[in-house]
Amino acid sequence: MRDEPKAVVLLSGGLDSTTCLAIAKARGFQPLALTFRYGQRHDVEIEAARRVARAFGVRRHVVAALDGALFGGSALTDPDIDVPKGRSADQMGADIPVTYVPARNTVFLAMALAMAEANDARDIFIGVNALDYSGYPDCRPEYIEAFQRMADLATAGAVRDGRAVTIHAPLIAMSKAEIVAEGNRLGVDWSLTSTCYDPDRDGAACGRCDACRLRLDGFAAAGAVDPIAYAQG
Amino acid sequence: MRDEPKAVVLLSGGLDSTTCLAIAKARGFQPLALTFRYGQRHDVEIEAARRVARAFGVRRHVVAALDGALFGGSALTDPDIDVPKGRSADQMGADIPVTYVPARNTVFLAMALAMAEANDARDIFIGVNALDYSGYPDCRPEYIEAFQRMADLATAGAVRDGRAVTIHAPLIAMSKAEIVAEGNRLGVDWSLTSTCYDPDRDGAACGRCDACRLRLDGFAAAGAVDPIAYAQG
Repeated sequence: MRDEPKAVVLLSGGLDSTTCLAIAKARGFQPLALTFRYGQRHDVEIEAARRVARAFGVRRHVVAALDGALFGGSALTDPDIDVPKGRSADQMGADIPVTYVPARNTVFLAMALAMAEANDARDIFIGVNALDYSGYPDCRPEYIEAFQRMADLATAGAVRDGRAVTIHAPLIAMSKAEIVAEGNRLGVDWSLTSTCYDPDRDGAACGRCDACRLRLDGFAAAGAVDPIAYAQG
Repeated sequence: MRDEPKAVVLLSGGLDSTTCLAIAKARGFQPLALTFRYGQRHDVEIEAARRVARAFGVRRHVVAALDGALFGGSALTDPDIDVPKGRSADQMGADIPVTYVPARNTVFLAMALAMAEANDARDIFIGVNALDYSGYPDCRPEYIEAFQRMADLATAGAVRDGRAVTIHAPLIAMSKAEIVAEGNRLGVDWSLTSTCYDPDRDGAACGRCDACRLRLDGFAAAGAVDPIAYAQG
C-alpha cells in the first residue's frame, strides 16, 4: 500500500463521486477524500460520504466547511427557494436550474488542488459528467480542460516540473446507466450513497428532484435495482 | 451610490490589496471585500482588513474561514516552519519560498468568483504583482489569464452572456515603489495596513521577513515614510 500514488478524490457521497472513488482505487491510487459542508440542505450526503470513505478504506478524509454566505442564491443552500420536482429530461437540459450553486466546481477543484499540493498528490478525481449533467456549466469537458490549463500555471510543483497535478474526470462522457454499470463492475455498495437534493428527516430520498430522477433513470436503464429508501407517495 | 457596479475585492489588509481596493473605488466600483482566515500565523492582518474596509466605506465584508488542514506545509500556516528573515532581493527571486501557501490564489479567486456570482458582481480585483512577487507562481500574468479563461467557462452567467466576470489585477506590472506612489495618490492611510508575515504579539512588524523588506524597500524607493510600528532590534 505504501507505494501507491496518492490522489485527491472529491467525494459528495452520491452515485457519481462514489463511482469515481472506486475508479481511482481500481487505477491503483491511494485515495484522499475531500468533502464539503457548504450549507447544503441535503447534508445527509456528508454522512453518506463518511460511510463511503470508510467502506473504501480511505485513510485521510477531510470534511471542509465553506462559508455558505458565499454561495447564496441556490435552491441547494437557500431554504426560501424550492427544489424543483417532477421535471422531464428536456426541462432539465433546457436551462441552468435554481439548484446551480455559484462557481461550485471551481471552488471544489481549487480546494482539491491545495490539498493535493499540500499532501504530495499529483492527481485529482472529480465525478462530473456532461451528459446527464442537469445543465451545470462547470460539468462540461471544456471547463475541466480550462481548469487543467490554469492549474498547470498555479502551483509550485507546476513551475518546478511542468504539469504537477492531473485532473481526472472519468465519468465525463458516461451516461448515468453506464456509471451504474461501472460502479456495479467495481463492487460499489449503492446502499451507502445519497443523491437526493431534498431528503426527508429520516434521510429517505424524495424520488422527484432532478438528482433522484437522473439516478432512478440510470438504474432503470442499467437494468439494476437501487437499494436506497425513497419516501412514499 | 446605488448605481455603481459591484466588484469583489480580495482584501488581506496589506499594502497591495489595500491599494487595489482604492483603485477599484477610484474606477467607480462599489467594492465588496473578501478576506480569508486560513490558519495564517499573521492573523493580525484580518484586523487590518477590517480597519481598511471600514475606512473605505465597504458595505459588505465577508471574512471566510478556510480549513487550514488543506494548506499544510507553508511557513505561513505551520508553526514548525520558520519564516525566513533577512533575505536579499536575489534570494527572494531565486526559488519558491517556504512561505508559499499551496494553490492559495486559486482558492481565493475561486471563492471570489462564487461571491461575485452570488452577489451579481461582474468584476473581481486581486492585488497580485509579478515584479516584487517573492517567487510565487500564482502571481504571474499568465496564471491570471488562465484563470480568466477558466472563469469564462465556469459560471451560469458566462454561459448566458459570454464573459461574466472580469479579473482585474491592476498592480501586476507595478513595482512596490509604484504601488506606494499610487496608494499615496489615492489617499490610502498606510497606518491601517499590515504586511508582516511574523508580527510580534503587539502587532509590530518584524521588519526582516520578505514581505516587510519588500514593503520597506517600496516606501524607500517611493521617497515615502511607512507609518506602521516595527519591532526594535
